[in-house]
Amino acid sequence: MALRVGVIGGGQLARMMIAPAVELGLDMRVLAEAEGMSAQPAATAVGDYRDFETVRAFASEVDVVTFDHEHVPQEVLRALVAEGIAVHPGPDALQFAQDKLDMRARLADLGVPQPDWAAVSDLEGLQAFLDDHGGRAVVKTPRGGYDGKGVRVVRSADEAADWFADTSTGSAVGAGDTPIDALLVEELVPFTRELAQQIARRPSGQMIAYPVVETVQSDGVCAEVFAPAPGAGERLAQIAEDIGRRIAEGLGVTGMLAVELFETDDQRILVNELAMRPHNSGHWSQDGAVTGQFEQHLRAVADLPLGDTAPRARWSAMVNILGGPAEGAFEDRFEAAMSEHPDAKIHTYGKSARPGRKVGHVNASGDDLDDVVYTARAAAAHFA
Amino acid sequence: MALRVGVIGGGQLARMMIAPAVELGLDMRVLAEAEGMSAQPAATAVGDYRDFETVRAFASEVDVVTFDHEHVPQEVLRALVAEGIAVHPGPDALQFAQDKLDMRARLADLGVPQPDWAAVSDLEGLQAFLDDHGGRAVVKTPRGGYDGKGVRVVRSADEAADWFADTSTGSAVGAGDTPIDALLVEELVPFTRELAQQIARRPSGQMIAYPVVETVQSDGVCAEVFAPAPGAGERLAQIAEDIGRRIAEGLGVTGMLAVELFETDDQRILVNELAMRPHNSGHWSQDGAVTGQFEQHLRAVADLPLGDTAPRARWSAMVNILGGPAEGAFEDRFEAAMSEHPDAKIHTYGKSARPGRKVGHVNASGDDLDDVVYTARAAAAHFA
Repeated sequence: MALRVGVIGGGQLARMMIAPAVELGLDMRVLAEAEGMSAQPAATAVGDYRDFETVRAFASEVDVVTFDHEHVPQEVLRALVAEGIAVHPGPDALQFAQDKLDMRARLADLGVPQPDWAAVSDLEGLQAFLDDHGGRAVVKTPRGGYDGKGVRVVRSADEAADWFADTSTGSAVGAGDTPIDALLVEELVPFTRELAQQIARRPSGQMIAYPVVETVQSDGVCAEVFAPAPGAGERLAQIAEDIGRRIAEGLGVTGMLAVELFETDDQRILVNELAMRPHNSGHWSQDGAVTGQFEQHLRAVADLPLGDTAPRARWSAMVNILGGPAEGAFEDRFEAAMSEHPDAKIHTYGKSARPGRKVGHVNASGDDLDDVVYTARAAAAHFA
Repeated sequence: MALRVGVIGGGQLARMMIAPAVELGLDMRVLAEAEGMSAQPAATAVGDYRDFETVRAFASEVDVVTFDHEHVPQEVLRALVAEGIAVHPGPDALQFAQDKLDMRARLADLGVPQPDWAAVSDLEGLQAFLDDHGGRAVVKTPRGGYDGKGVRVVRSADEAADWFADTSTGSAVGAGDTPIDALLVEELVPFTRELAQQIARRPSGQMIAYPVVETVQSDGVCAEVFAPAPGAGERLAQIAEDIGRRIAEGLGVTGMLAVELFETDDQRILVNELAMRPHNSGHWSQDGAVTGQFEQHLRAVADLPLGDTAPRARWSAMVNILGGPAEGAFEDRFEAAMSEHPDAKIHTYGKSARPGRKVGHVNASGDDLDDVVYTARAAAAHFA
């Protein structure tokens, strides 16, 4: 019988696992939040991932449970594990993706380079951190933030006063049902660019790294990725890979791990964020690497040997389609985009258009970085 | 609303359209012959493709109808077209893939190089052809043959006597409900190897060619493909492409066309067979070309601009997994195959094992042909 992989969450990350699951012959199922989500083609159940009975019913019919997102509550995850269900990544790892304060503390234990940070539980504490760090800092809600939400650059503690008022519920940032005791404050790193390092790790411990890539954010949302990171020499690539491996192993991650990194003007590499799932920074690998991150995630969580991560071309670029067509359907733009860019790989998420929403992306690969970036940008622009 | 593509037939070719359909955001549906077929993940209906009402009900819910195979009867196809349903390839083209006598006659009209052939309606006619062609020839049932079935090399007319006895029903070869008036007899071409040329053509007339490939048959079944055909120079590639284009245009093919070719020791290229759908000779393109044949077929039948057919690597090889594991499940072999060959791309069809049955294939790509062929063969061997 085919290996059954159950994915909790019906977003585009689950959707993009469908293609490799079909090719590998895995029986992939999705517990979606609602009808008609991105991963609809593989959706076998609809329900609330915070409800243990719902999740248990779904999980009992598969060989391994994995995720489209990191929001399944710890108590649900731990109850699944207690019932003997294989969950990858497991709750012990996921807690560090779910709580940024826990993550900072754990990375400090591991000796991984990261920005100065502190847990602050009141305005006085935040102001003290600001005073120590040039009067500017980044405040983050420990839980529930994504794509720039739950993150704010402040110059005075007062600018986060509303979050302190809300720390008892976390409701201001969408997810988190657990009361928040403190906010995370981090130094505002004088970075020259952002990088991302992906590592796949299977339960047996085998790990494989992807090339470090450069990511370009726009309003806190990943907009473009260049792979491998232009100008990254052997040394930088090795530092990034080492950080990724240390975190994957240290946190016991299974599946894909993405480590978002800052590169500073003095050539330091500092860890910004973690994601324990396929990640926007790895979409290029669908077409640009021998083993795309979605296939790799499936292999890793099913405890199958990991695939080659070598690039298929010297350069690849990924450009997100943010918002989507202001008028008409995504498909209405295919004619122009495809005819002008026959070498662009267009990926759509089956979502309706909405300002700033990720509704698809374009990959391009080739020998010349400028050409590749141009192709991906120009093709993506047809869907604006 | 997403473009709805309806595929008639639930075999592995339909299955392998699922991955690109999901990525492009096409709403792909399959009319499968039975439950649990290869294309089950996209199967939305089960029924007899020879029954017009069944096919009409399926077709009325999609924007375009295409196929996993060429066996839908002409009367069904023509009735769909009469109702204004878009059918690609259409019946006028498909008749030449359905009837090898019609195909030979049409290629003769087009001046395409092919083996000597004749329509023979009795033993005397067959014997006369044999006498004219060195005492050996290939006899084919005009309809219903595939993967070596309905094809026989004979040295005397008597060796096809049973087929003549059956020409009133065609039942000896599996498909064809139409009475067969004559058999096709062809000269036994002294070929040095077999090649295949694929062309995509959209309804608007746009065409794009894939590189000509070498195919290796075993017992009449495609076993291996090397892309591009080793040692094929510019001249050979151009001849093959010209033949493909002439046939695609001359027969009005829409979607993918595969032209199976003989290369003779005196450097002639002769047309062996045609297939108007994705074809085993093009499986390498899933991983080895910028646009795989399954994505290309979807683009072509949906009348979308065709994608770049450039190889992603200098060499690609495809090795079929024939029969499947004698014991245990396909997935039981993943551990060994993947750990020894992390760069092999394994594609499974979700079929149970049966001697000689195509149950999957392995693609590999790289700079060195020997390495690539070794990888694909060695990985595929794990599933025997």
